[in-house]
Amino acid sequence: MDFEPSPRAADYLARVRAFMRDEIAPVEPAFWAGIRQANHGADWQRWEVPEMLEELKRKARAQGLWNMFLPDSQAGAGLSVLEYAPIAEESGRSLLAPTVFNCNAPDSGNMELLFKYGSEEQKARWLQPLLAGEIRSAFCMTEPDVASSDATNMRATAVVEGDQIVLNGRKWWSSGIGDPHTKILVVMAHTPDAAKGKHEQHSMVLVPVETPGVTIERMLPVFGFYDEPHGHGEIRFENVRLPLSAFVGGPGRGFEIAQGRLGPGRIHHAMRCIGAAEAALELMVHRGMARVAFGKPLMELGGNAERLAEARIAIDQARLLTLHAAWKIDTVGAAKAMKEISLIKVVAPNVLQQVCDMAIQIHGGAGLSDDTPLSAFFIQARSIRLADGPDEVHKTLIAKLELKRLGYGKQGGGKA
Amino acid sequence: MDFEPSPRAADYLARVRAFMRDEIAPVEPAFWAGIRQANHGADWQRWEVPEMLEELKRKARAQGLWNMFLPDSQAGAGLSVLEYAPIAEESGRSLLAPTVFNCNAPDSGNMELLFKYGSEEQKARWLQPLLAGEIRSAFCMTEPDVASSDATNMRATAVVEGDQIVLNGRKWWSSGIGDPHTKILVVMAHTPDAAKGKHEQHSMVLVPVETPGVTIERMLPVFGFYDEPHGHGEIRFENVRLPLSAFVGGPGRGFEIAQGRLGPGRIHHAMRCIGAAEAALELMVHRGMARVAFGKPLMELGGNAERLAEARIAIDQARLLTLHAAWKIDTVGAAKAMKEISLIKVVAPNVLQQVCDMAIQIHGGAGLSDDTPLSAFFIQARSIRLADGPDEVHKTLIAKLELKRLGYGKQGGGKA
Amino acid sequence: MDFEPSPRAADYLARVRAFMRDEIAPVEPAFWAGIRQANHGADWQRWEVPEMLEELKRKARAQGLWNMFLPDSQAGAGLSVLEYAPIAEESGRSLLAPTVFNCNAPDSGNMELLFKYGSEEQKARWLQPLLAGEIRSAFCMTEPDVASSDATNMRATAVVEGDQIVLNGRKWWSSGIGDPHTKILVVMAHTPDAAKGKHEQHSMVLVPVETPGVTIERMLPVFGFYDEPHGHGEIRFENVRLPLSAFVGGPGRGFEIAQGRLGPGRIHHAMRCIGAAEAALELMVHRGMARVAFGKPLMELGGNAERLAEARIAIDQARLLTLHAAWKIDTVGAAKAMKEISLIKVVAPNVLQQVCDMAIQIHGGAGLSDDTPLSAFFIQARSIRLADGPDEVHKTLIAKLELKRLGYGKQGGGKA
Amino acid sequence: MDFEPSPRAADYLARVRAFMRDEIAPVEPAFWAGIRQANHGADWQRWEVPEMLEELKRKARAQGLWNMFLPDSQAGAGLSVLEYAPIAEESGRSLLAPTVFNCNAPDSGNMELLFKYGSEEQKARWLQPLLAGEIRSAFCMTEPDVASSDATNMRATAVVEGDQIVLNGRKWWSSGIGDPHTKILVVMAHTPDAAKGKHEQHSMVLVPVETPGVTIERMLPVFGFYDEPHGHGEIRFENVRLPLSAFVGGPGRGFEIAQGRLGPGRIHHAMRCIGAAEAALELMVHRGMARVAFGKPLMELGGNAERLAEARIAIDQARLLTLHAAWKIDTVGAAKAMKEISLIKVVAPNVLQQVCDMAIQIHGGAGLSDDTPLSAFFIQARSIRLADGPDEVHKTLIAKLELKRLGYGKQGGGKA
Repeated sequence: MDFEPSPRAADYLARVRAFMRDEIAPVEPAFWAGIRQANHGADWQRWEVPEMLEELKRKARAQGLWNMFLPDSQAGAGLSVLEYAPIAEESGRSLLAPTVFNCNAPDSGNMELLFKYGSEEQKARWLQPLLAGEIRSAFCMTEPDVASSDATNMRATAVVEGDQIVLNGRKWWSSGIGDPHTKILVVMAHTPDAAKGKHEQHSMVLVPVETPGVTIERMLPVFGFYDEPHGHGEIRFENVRLPLSAFVGGPGRGFEIAQGRLGPGRIHHAMRCIGAAEAALELMVHRGMARVAFGKPLMELGGNAERLAEARIAIDQARLLTLHAAWKIDTVGAAKAMKEISLIKVVAPNVLQQVCDMAIQIHGGAGLSDDTPLSAFFIQARSIRLADGPDEVHKTLIAKLELKRLGYGKQGGGKA
Repeated sequence: MDFEPSPRAADYLARVRAFMRDEIAPVEPAFWAGIRQANHGADWQRWEVPEMLEELKRKARAQGLWNMFLPDSQAGAGLSVLEYAPIAEESGRSLLAPTVFNCNAPDSGNMELLFKYGSEEQKARWLQPLLAGEIRSAFCMTEPDVASSDATNMRATAVVEGDQIVLNGRKWWSSGIGDPHTKILVVMAHTPDAAKGKHEQHSMVLVPVETPGVTIERMLPVFGFYDEPHGHGEIRFENVRLPLSAFVGGPGRGFEIAQGRLGPGRIHHAMRCIGAAEAALELMVHRGMARVAFGKPLMELGGNAERLAEARIAIDQARLLTLHAAWKIDTVGAAKAMKEISLIKVVAPNVLQQVCDMAIQIHGGAGLSDDTPLSAFFIQARSIRLADGPDEVHKTLIAKLELKRLGYGKQGGGKA
Repeated sequence: MDFEPSPRAADYLARVRAFMRDEIAPVEPAFWAGIRQANHGADWQRWEVPEMLEELKRKARAQGLWNMFLPDSQAGAGLSVLEYAPIAEESGRSLLAPTVFNCNAPDSGNMELLFKYGSEEQKARWLQPLLAGEIRSAFCMTEPDVASSDATNMRATAVVEGDQIVLNGRKWWSSGIGDPHTKILVVMAHTPDAAKGKHEQHSMVLVPVETPGVTIERMLPVFGFYDEPHGHGEIRFENVRLPLSAFVGGPGRGFEIAQGRLGPGRIHHAMRCIGAAEAALELMVHRGMARVAFGKPLMELGGNAERLAEARIAIDQARLLTLHAAWKIDTVGAAKAMKEISLIKVVAPNVLQQVCDMAIQIHGGAGLSDDTPLSAFFIQARSIRLADGPDEVHKTLIAKLELKRLGYGKQGGGKA
Repeated sequence: MDFEPSPRAADYLARVRAFMRDEIAPVEPAFWAGIRQANHGADWQRWEVPEMLEELKRKARAQGLWNMFLPDSQAGAGLSVLEYAPIAEESGRSLLAPTVFNCNAPDSGNMELLFKYGSEEQKARWLQPLLAGEIRSAFCMTEPDVASSDATNMRATAVVEGDQIVLNGRKWWSSGIGDPHTKILVVMAHTPDAAKGKHEQHSMVLVPVETPGVTIERMLPVFGFYDEPHGHGEIRFENVRLPLSAFVGGPGRGFEIAQGRLGPGRIHHAMRCIGAAEAALELMVHRGMARVAFGKPLMELGGNAERLAEARIAIDQARLLTLHAAWKIDTVGAAKAMKEISLIKVVAPNVLQQVCDMAIQIHGGAGLSDDTPLSAFFIQARSIRLADGPDEVHKTLIAKLELKRLGYGKQGGGKA
């Protein structure tokens, strides 16, 4: 259980830190200000990706700070989940950095999925341009009309008719769909098969965004925030026809693939949350020491110092817990690290939400505005508490696995 | 300590409830959807007030459901703070109703201020059109460059030069400033006077929005939400020259007037929060019973029922506490009800935030979007925890007053 | 909804306060010290009631400060539940006062039960000496071998055989059983009757403590605290034979009577908790101002002042909520105030536990010892969170009643 | 940052676990029942140590499961702090095991202190019999008359007069003092020296318990629990005369020694808390699955499963945080691990208190009694939140060190 980064990982981390300090930090405020000034809001058809981002991506790629999330040493950086974790944390301090390093969700998860389960043809057509950062992708799982916390509720269907897949249904919170570079959707849908078990009747299907029958209906705000030019969309699929080769790994493997996709992805999310929480803590301290009320820096008033300590306590615990889950995935595989993954899925965004709430309070009105990244971090935290299974589903799973460990219940698994 | 509404208050409440059900509820979704579609976001110069709102205001006024917050029986409805409280609660269930009834912040507070402290000229020019709902107003107190939780930090100045007031400074979170109907600003600023005490050197000044030197620089989002067409703005005042008659109540009375303005206003805010929390609880229950996961309605899964109980516990306590504070204001005046006012200033928005957080969690992604009022309620709660003094300032004041009650410290007052 | 005490209630309250200040406070420390010095701990057969207590009871009775909990104006003081509430609060500031005023649990509940449901014979034999404070009583409901939070789990049986009741079973947490003056037990047990519903098969039986077959097995400590000379005991009933006249209200009425007994009793418990919380808050403030660390009184360090404010917030809310529940019982009866009663059953002891935890923390080691009443108050809070239905059962009931209010579920009742 | 136990540590752990299962668990209930039956309570002069304990100690020592806390490989087991941590956790599952392994507080800390700072004479006279488990010791630091959270408040004096030390003062919460085997006290007292700094004026003095002028005044209960036969006492020192050789490490080194003593000791406390929390969680699960209410095992009702998950989340985080602090002490020394030590000082007992509170709630009345170790664990947690610096002092220190890390303040140290 050694959490110390390897020399290679430490080197990556140092270079990521330097790149963020030297290349990203100086331009990031202008990047977001530009997007705000362009001000397209819900009018997502007019969203544009600033050229500045592509420039940063080129630089990062040139320095090899690229696809570091991918454990494969050819396609990615050859880092284990544990080795990549501190890099994910570091990148999470910025709202822009993950995209600059081509390590952003949902592309990272989609790339991992295509890398592990994709056919050669799928890899050539979609994985390569994704790895090159030329296109982007979305992941379509959650649906508006059912409680998606129970994935078996899914209503979208991917039915085989002859040599075609016919896709119907409606998805939302498909993140990244607002980006004009997004070309490919990974869609999970029901492929009814009476002969199979409940968790073998769903498929992953690759759907080019331009396919007839695919309609992006709107972008969804989170507390008024559209996450432009990334976006979270609602999509209708109406008799969308695709070749059988659009199945990833064949029909019926949806749950299996989703689980494989979600393990390391949750580590990345958690570590980015922790990085954001560290950034929020620093903002809180600097603001709290710079502003004076009733004759003292805010940080020295009332319960503020204790709250700072509570933030430190929460962050340090969350980091160690996440590193432990990463180590477990590396050691025994994601399937056997289900409890550890659920633990950090609950902890990390809640810690981020708590620390942001404190930091906003210290900032006063500025904390609510977009003058600092705090409001965006808060929204990130609040969203992740629902994405990939809400807190409550993961807590229930943890409880089941505890009961199982102590001799109660059968397969305590469930699908989080 | 009788919290039972009088027959008159009960009659008003019944009619407000009926009006909200029959007139507002059927059109409110279309109202907000229209604003979203118009989609001006930060581009506030293009914000418009939908005609639908003016139509609703006309109807409400015709029915006498108008200015009910104002205790005066000529200008308002003649209801005490306690009598108006349940009406404020009811109106808080809707994001639109307070405006429809001309009972919305900050206009209600500004009207009260003008009613109590305004000269006849000021009343004729500004109070009358405000009471008529023809114009709107903003209140400019918080500043971007200092910790405004300590109001003595204020840097804006209103200096007397001959027969003019010269106003300089910068204010932000001036709510309502985005509304095209807003014509008048109530600005608090420092009027230095070495002969006076620390809390007698600030003035309230009436500034027509068109006065030369007044520049609205931008609208501030709260978590990405611009509260269009109301808005929260940042304003620069540069050598703004006004006649001496622009002082409200004369120079140096700013703190006195601010305190008078904030007492009942905090009751209104608190009761609207409680109404919003009731609405959020109902949304949570209906959603939680309509959506099924793992074979059961969400509301029957895991800790959801207990959380529902916790929401009920929190709301009922907050309501009683606010009614008690209202009763105290009516009985002994706002100045002697300082502790009770601070108690509900802390409690009510925190309860609303907590209940919204639960309700969002039950709604899944829908709770984050603008498909329900939950995200707007959440933002309301989060903002009010900072507005009119952050939680921490009020807690500190409560503690001082407790110490004083038990024999420690001198004037435990302070200015929250 | 008028919470103001009537003149009669205010007069009682003033006299109770004076009696506590003048008669109880001066001797209470010596009373408990005497018990500690006698030091019988678990060896309950040697417990004694200090004569000092009987002396105080005589004085209180002489002044009419006696049986004030009982609404009947002959047997008690003729105060409504709402009128008695502040008196219960006041008495809760002392660990001794409720007994001095003959208003202590479980005797008060047992007297109420006998008053409402007892036969003339039962009243003459047991109620009269209880009202006179000559004997004490215990209430035997909870059992060691089942989850007593679900009262239908009860295993003790009271079976009719000819003209006798035969009682068998085991009860624990029978409070008051350690007192040498305790002469009568009110025992709830199962009286099987296939013709009746689930909640009509239990009876209340009066069992003189000396009846053959009754064995007090031990006293149970709460966190090491035996609550001497009151005590919480475990009792075995083995073929205890009683006349049919020992049924209270006849066989099968156990649940009905238990509910009737618990309504006002929970108000009393809640108000005593609130009184204890006020006392704890005062102790916290006085200690926190008297002790200095790092150059300042403890109360001015770190988050202590904010915690003081949180204690005030919690207590004031709990009091209003309890007064509201009392008013509801007076107005519509306990059966229709089930939700309100459950709300305060959850809130009041939790508030007391929270305030005591803070106050202990300010006291340091002294707070853990028996040098202050804080540890006893803490234990009281922790126990009441389980007694008369644990928090979770009441929360579940509240949730059911909320669902019912909003149109879901049938009779949302349940038995808390 | 490798938290994996070494083979030697793993072997110790396995043997400790086996010993606890085979030797301690079968007799522990009888051990405590025996003490309860003997029932001496506050009458500590009659306390006895059951022979059963000495027998267990002999067996443990014979197997080398002895003094494992001591890093020295001759006097102890040669385990690092990190290696010993899981052993401390395991032993913390039992209330008896730490004493059986001669690894109990305060003896372990006192042995470490004597090992590091004691003279040869002191080692021969006191360390040897302590290491052999023949005698016990107490540590006297906290005082009844001042806020001991600020150690510079200390009033006890150890003044040099000629070739003698004259000790005066009063100490309390001197743990272990009730044990009839306790022969030696380590007393911290003020040795005024105008030439020295504030933290160089205190000394550690070895005081044989039989020295004239030493009076044990009473044992202090924690929530009624006397921790018999260990005990926490109040002691008066009146003109106690000792040779100069009674100073540990010479006069003026008290703070230095206290800090050295407290670092690893806090790790031990924290890990024992974590072991106790694991034991409490298991008790909760077993009880919650064995008892049925409303047709289901308690563990499946309402929020219980979620609370179980929260307990797991809290425990796993606390463990990792403590292992990290242990690793830091091993790597850079306790002085540079001050922040990490304070983090776990806050976290571990709070987690134990939280988990015990849940577990008690699931147990109902049984959880409050002494039928399970839960009430003793709860008391342990509540006490440790005050011992060795209350939560608030450690949070304040953490905040200072965070501020220092981010460039604010000077030496952020302080003395926790």
